[in-house]
Amino acid sequence: MTATVEVTFEVFSRQCRQRVDSALEHLLPAVAGPQARLYEAMRYSVFNGGKRIRPVLAYAAAGALAPLPAAVGPIDSVACALECIHAYSLIHDDLPAMDDDDLRRGKPTSHIAFDEATAILAGDALQALAFETLCEPAALSADIRLGLVQRLARAAGGAGMVAGQAVDLESVDRHLSLEQLQHMHNRKTGALIEAGVIMGAMATGVATRDQLTALEAYARAVGLAFQIQDDILDVVADTATLGKRQGADQALNKPTYVSLLGLEEARRRAATLSEQACDSLCGFDEQAQRLRELARYIVKRSS
Amino acid sequence: MTATVEVTFEVFSRQCRQRVDSALEHLLPAVAGPQARLYEAMRYSVFNGGKRIRPVLAYAAAGALAPLPAAVGPIDSVACALECIHAYSLIHDDLPAMDDDDLRRGKPTSHIAFDEATAILAGDALQALAFETLCEPAALSADIRLGLVQRLARAAGGAGMVAGQAVDLESVDRHLSLEQLQHMHNRKTGALIEAGVIMGAMATGVATRDQLTALEAYARAVGLAFQIQDDILDVVADTATLGKRQGADQALNKPTYVSLLGLEEARRRAATLSEQACDSLCGFDEQAQRLRELARYIVKRSS
Repeated sequence: MTATVEVTFEVFSRQCRQRVDSALEHLLPAVAGPQARLYEAMRYSVFNGGKRIRPVLAYAAAGALAPLPAAVGPIDSVACALECIHAYSLIHDDLPAMDDDDLRRGKPTSHIAFDEATAILAGDALQALAFETLCEPAALSADIRLGLVQRLARAAGGAGMVAGQAVDLESVDRHLSLEQLQHMHNRKTGALIEAGVIMGAMATGVATRDQLTALEAYARAVGLAFQIQDDILDVVADTATLGKRQGADQALNKPTYVSLLGLEEARRRAATLSEQACDSLCGFDEQAQRLRELARYIVKRSS
Repeated sequence: MTATVEVTFEVFSRQCRQRVDSALEHLLPAVAGPQARLYEAMRYSVFNGGKRIRPVLAYAAAGALAPLPAAVGPIDSVACALECIHAYSLIHDDLPAMDDDDLRRGKPTSHIAFDEATAILAGDALQALAFETLCEPAALSADIRLGLVQRLARAAGGAGMVAGQAVDLESVDRHLSLEQLQHMHNRKTGALIEAGVIMGAMATGVATRDQLTALEAYARAVGLAFQIQDDILDVVADTATLGKRQGADQALNKPTYVSLLGLEEARRRAATLSEQACDSLCGFDEQAQRLRELARYIVKRSS
């Protein structure tokens, strides 16, 4: 029974990946013209074999409220926007002045494959593209599209993802309390994961206030579980599986959930959060099954 | 007579600067909390004594269609968004991997005053803030606000400002034709100047299609004149007046209008464009006087 569910979820998430990849293929500019190198760099980082967790969350949240339309539509714009922001943040985080990573998913990072200037600009252009694409889906009211822009801008900006990265960089060689670590991760990773869930729901055009509140709770728990699992993988996975340098956070002497809580307690917390995420979906029927499976997958993944 | 007009324009542009500065003061996050340093860097670059030409253009364009309201409103959100994008682009352009400038308006650039990572993140956060602030003015319909987001995203992104910067970086030590140089500048500087004019007009809520078309023509001419004047100043102004290293483009062996056309022809073209800009406003009455004055100011400025 469990095996069947997992296979089905695998199929679902593969379908989501294919769907967002196809939409991104259309969205990203063709590699041509005077700025061809910029466009090549944008595509290089967007199509880097990522797991597309934020789009999968968005599709799953949309599917929890209404059957996913087969045709390309607003939910695909949301999925693309999320992935553009995610890709831009990885490009900038990997820069020499930031985390100085030369490997991402087993491939050279953008500033290695291209150069630092192109990497910075590719990130900048991807951020703008995320907002541009949210303006487009004519099937949604202007009010909802504006709500999507606002939600993403807040999640990605100086009170969200960028704030988390700023605090993360300053935390090297420092002790953070569990509360401070959580504050940082809620912004660095959590904000965009939450935005993915909420924006996916908003893109259906039928989300009620109560549903959004329940989904917020789900997303907060999932976001935190995701980050704890990331910290666990940084310690236990090998570089080949992870596609980035194993132990990178340890090497930088960054505080992690594992360094603060120990491996076993970190695992326990991730599992508890995964359950809490599922509990917050009690008002949803079996249409929310994908979200429940995703909450379980996130703490079981090995890369 | 001329003297009177110039004084009046000086007063107008000072009022615009004060108005956008006051709005930015409210918009930018207070320097507090775990990410205080990020916020300090955002404020440092936004409040760097800039001329606020894009906001002045936006206010002037709005004023050409309807009397500028005294109360804070949509036009101020537009002015802030333009300045956030402009400030972010300067921070990133000045980075060591880009133009490697250590001086901007006579002050250390962001990565010198702070550090590279903070500078990159401050730029990233300012871009997100620009889009966030355009979502807010409730006095405008969601349709118009969405149009503002779309216009700014296109102007700032990979087909606009970022494309121009990418091509500019690749043009070091290369020969560009006049056409290629123009293509680059239309994106690097022109796109945001055009957006300033059009968004200012849109923020009134009363712009007609014909008016926007005329303003597009005005903005294109002004944007190009602005860039030619920039190239002229890079050659003739001294570092103290310019607030950045005089001859920086020459030192980088970047093609400029002056290197392609010679100083006199560059001056002639700038003057012609300034006149063309004014001519495109023939359908507007004296309310467009600020725009006309601005077109003249842009080719007369000394910094």
